[in-house]
Formats: sequence, structure tokens, C-alpha cells
Amino acid sequence: MADFAIEFTDVERAAAKIHDHIIRTPVLSPPEINELAGAELFFKCENFQHVGAFKARGACNAVFSLSDEAAQAGVVTHSSGNHAAALARAARLREIDAHIVMPENSAAVKLAAVRRLGVEPVFSESNSASREAVANRVQQETGATFIHPFDNADVMAGQGTAALELLADAPDLDALIVPVGGGGLLSGSLIVAQHLAPQIPVYAAEPAWADDSYRSLQSGKIEIPERYDTIADGLRTPLGQLTFPVVRNLLKQVLLVSEDQIRRATRTLIQQGRMIVEPSGAVSLAAVLANPELFVSKRVGLIISGGNIDSETLRRITSVS
Amino acid sequence: MADFAIEFTDVERAAAKIHDHIIRTPVLSPPEINELAGAELFFKCENFQHVGAFKARGACNAVFSLSDEAAQAGVVTHSSGNHAAALARAARLREIDAHIVMPENSAAVKLAAVRRLGVEPVFSESNSASREAVANRVQQETGATFIHPFDNADVMAGQGTAALELLADAPDLDALIVPVGGGGLLSGSLIVAQHLAPQIPVYAAEPAWADDSYRSLQSGKIEIPERYDTIADGLRTPLGQLTFPVVRNLLKQVLLVSEDQIRRATRTLIQQGRMIVEPSGAVSLAAVLANPELFVSKRVGLIISGGNIDSETLRRITSVS
Repeated sequence: MADFAIEFTDVERAAAKIHDHIIRTPVLSPPEINELAGAELFFKCENFQHVGAFKARGACNAVFSLSDEAAQAGVVTHSSGNHAAALARAARLREIDAHIVMPENSAAVKLAAVRRLGVEPVFSESNSASREAVANRVQQETGATFIHPFDNADVMAGQGTAALELLADAPDLDALIVPVGGGGLLSGSLIVAQHLAPQIPVYAAEPAWADDSYRSLQSGKIEIPERYDTIADGLRTPLGQLTFPVVRNLLKQVLLVSEDQIRRATRTLIQQGRMIVEPSGAVSLAAVLANPELFVSKRVGLIISGGNIDSETLRRITSVS
Repeated sequence: MADFAIEFTDVERAAAKIHDHIIRTPVLSPPEINELAGAELFFKCENFQHVGAFKARGACNAVFSLSDEAAQAGVVTHSSGNHAAALARAARLREIDAHIVMPENSAAVKLAAVRRLGVEPVFSESNSASREAVANRVQQETGATFIHPFDNADVMAGQGTAALELLADAPDLDALIVPVGGGGLLSGSLIVAQHLAPQIPVYAAEPAWADDSYRSLQSGKIEIPERYDTIADGLRTPLGQLTFPVVRNLLKQVLLVSEDQIRRATRTLIQQGRMIVEPSGAVSLAAVLANPELFVSKRVGLIISGGNIDSETLRRITSVS
């Protein structure tokens, strides 16, 4: 067996550690969407999580896993999105400083989420070299611990708790589908499924416009995205050194979905599921609808990763019917 | 004690009878809305119920309470909204006919909901005389049982199951707020609260533009609405002969809310709560936000009655920020 950054007991420990700080989000099975899919779908609704995304889990586990001494110096991260708000919130819960490096062109709703938590973002340019340089500088100046958005064992274990709850609340699933960006949520979910339900195939859902995970599994090494314009803005990231081995060994298959399929799945969750999801959160449903041969008549678990959507995007997506 | 159409055991029996046909909807407590309200709010999310509204409960209880002989002749109702879809669905579950009289000017989303359930609406003019006349004619022609949208003991008992679940899932509430239209949901909730938590004040939330319940409690007799243009289109109905005595004896107070307060509460539930609600479903939150002196620092249960909102209304409400 491969040597992974985390094992199942790490996820169990994370669940205990973050229990008081996260919401046990509901698992919903909207009848109209089941009818549309011809399957019984169980959505783990992390759009109802603190900061509107599963990222609250990993960030809390990472922050509450720090020694008191390390915690005193604060935490730092770079993130274009939900991890930023999640880390700011976790730091506030532990009453320590959070330094959040965000690209200048971040979505207004995501900047506002960080500011609402009392943190003024440190801006970088919108490329990974710039944001890593800025994060490094902050780290050296403050001694803060860098908490990577996904390539961090505590973060991976924390994200895995979403799958832990889903498998408990929706028993006897035939398959599990998880969105893949950097692979934090996916690797945590794979570790959980391998332990609790090894017979279940776990699929990753990925935008065709950010098909780096798909290509990474083909080439056997971490590939990077070739474009950064998918509407699923949380999934524009390559896999990490820690997440890739887990994905490579335990994943059944990456299912690619088009921009149009993502938009339609987002609209379906809003109009028929009556919940606000971000496009990155709807890729799992898009994968079900695009692959009926895999999922029809099955009981399928899907993780909705988040619900932070700009009102302009929301308006555009719901204005087609 | 007053002689009411239902008692607590009727609600318990309804819960058992409809158990396999309804969704145990989640109780959500969105952190951002709690912060805004300065209170701990527990939303019973009937927007995630079958047909997108609590009406699925009462309609199922009424249909499954019919004798086999009565059921054979089908059911008939007049409804501008969610009760229509709910009764169509319940009839389909029992494999009997449903005749649904709807006003010609019904919202497209509500007509579509009935048609999707295989029922072609019977149209009436948009006034109560016409829709009662049409319903009477259908009843005489078919022998179908008339199932009133709210003034029916089985319907009232069925609607009460929402409060039954809420009180079980959110213990130790300090107050309960329920939207009031015809009073089916409200009277069912009052009967439940009186039995399980008699110390809790139960408030009704009502649009100021449809303040008939407010005036009915003042005058001591059933008053009718003076205008029919509140955005909370599910609440444009007067109380009924069966619901009024329950409301009159057990309700703490009617809290009136303005159109602007309803629109803002709807927007808050969509943007901060990340769920789609119809304006009628948001009046409870509007009442909390309008009456901080009653609710600040309290644990408050609120029933979100439904989530069927036209995309045009959704767009209009979310386009202000």
C-alpha cells in the first residue's frame, strides 16, 4: 500500500477536533433532481457550511492542530477563494492572526467574506509566482505558519470529514463523486471511502477547461492547468505533492464536464434543488448528468463544495430557463 | 379549553401516516443570518419539501385519510399555489384522480408544478366566488372529495408535523414564528407547541398588506384581506372557520411586516442563507428582523413555508444588494 500523507484515523481525529466549530451540514436528495437524473442522489451540502464552503473544515483542523507556540505567530496563506475566508475564520476562533494573500482580481464576494472576518487581505498579482512570493515575505516577517489550501496533511484530513458525515447519513451508496481542484477534498474523501466503503467507486468531477487532474492520471505526474477561465473558479488549481499520490492510487476515474454542463447543473441545483451553489460546487451533478451509463438507478453521493457565487454570475445563470 | 378541530394526537397520527411520503426537511441555522439578527435562528426548511412547500404534508394526510370508497372518486380543490401541486402529488401517490381549480392568472411556476404531476388545471377567474363555483361543479360531476387548502382538520394536522419535527430537532426554543395565510400551518403548529412546549410564545408573521389575521384577532371574527397584492402571494387568504378558533386561543401575537421587509428577508435568506425561498416563506425572518426587542439573544424557531419563486421575482429581488 502506498504511503499517504494521511490515514483514516487522521480524519477521525480531525472530526473530533473541529466538531464544535463546523456545521454538520444536511444531506439533501431533491426529488425533482433525482427524477431528472434517473438516480437517487445524496448531496452533502457544504454550501451551508461556515464561510459557505467545505474549506472551513480543513482550515479549522489545521489551525487547531498548531502548538500554542506556533499559533502565537499566526497563520498565512494564499488563496483566491474559500480557503481564505475559512482560514481567517479559524484564526479568529483561536484568537490568532491570519495573513491572507489574495490576487487583486479576486471575486468581490470572496474579498468581502475575508473582510467581514476582520482580515484585510494582502494583495498579490494574479499568478502563482507572485502570490507565493508575497506569502513567503509575510511568513518571514511574522513567523506565521503557512497553511496551504490543500497540500497540507491537516487540511486534507479536515476536508475528509465531509465524506465521513456523508457516508454516515446516506448509507449504502453505489458511488461517490467529488469535485477536484487541488485535491484536498478529494484525497480526504478517498481515504474515508477506502476505509469505510472500499467497494464504492469514487469519481472526481473536473471541468474540461481545467483538466489537469485528468491528464495527471494519464501521465503519472502532476500536470498543470492549461487555461484558467472555467466558470468553476475553485477548480483552477493543479494537484499537490501530498494529494496526488492519494488520487492516483485510490480514484476510480476523472469525469470531465463542459462549461455548459456546469452552468446547467448549477441552474438545476438552484431552480430544482432550491439552493444556492457556486459553479465549482455543481460539477459533481454535471458529471452525473453527463454519464447516465454510470449512474442511472444508482444511489450516488455527491459533495457540493460551496455556495459562494457573485450575484452577477447568479443572475446570468438563472436568467436562462 | 376551547373545542378545536384537531388535537395533538391528530398531528402524531398524521406524522405516522405521511412518514413515507414526505421529506424530513433539515433545520438550518445560517451563521451570517444569526449574526445579522443577533439571535440564534432555527429555520425549518420546507422549501426543500416535496413540491417545494409544507403543503405536501397536509395534502398527503388528507388523501391518505380517505376511505377506499371515497378515494376512488378522487379529490378536488381550488388553490392558487402550493396546495394545488401538493394535492396533485398526493393523489398520484394514492393513484386517484385530482381536479385542481386554479385562477387563470396563477404564476407560471405553479401551473408548471401541477402539470409536471400529470394534472391539467381546471381554470377559474381570479376571485373566490368563481373558483368556488368551478370547484363545486367539478365536485358534483365527479363525486370527488373537496380538500380545502387549510380549513380541513386532516390538512391542519398534516401541516402541524412541520412544527413537530422542528421542536424535536431544535430543542429549548424561546419562541416560534410561523407565517399566516389561511392558518393551516399556524393552527397545526399552535396545537403542537401547546402540547410539547406550552411555555413558548408562538407568533404569526403576516404581511401588513394582508393584515386580515391581525384584524381578526382584534375584532374577534374572521376578517378578509383588503388588498391582494402583497409579494407574499401565499398569504393573501383569510383565516378559516376551523383555523380561526385555534389561532384566537393559542397565538401570542401577529407581527406585521412591510413589503420592503419581506423583500429584504427573502434576499437575506437567498444571499446569506444560500437557499431559495419564496417571499411567503421569508415573512418569519422579516418579523424577527423587524422586532429585535422580542428576539435578540433568543433561540427562535422559524418555519420557511416554501421555495417556489418565479425566476423573474428571484431576479428582481437579488438584483439589489
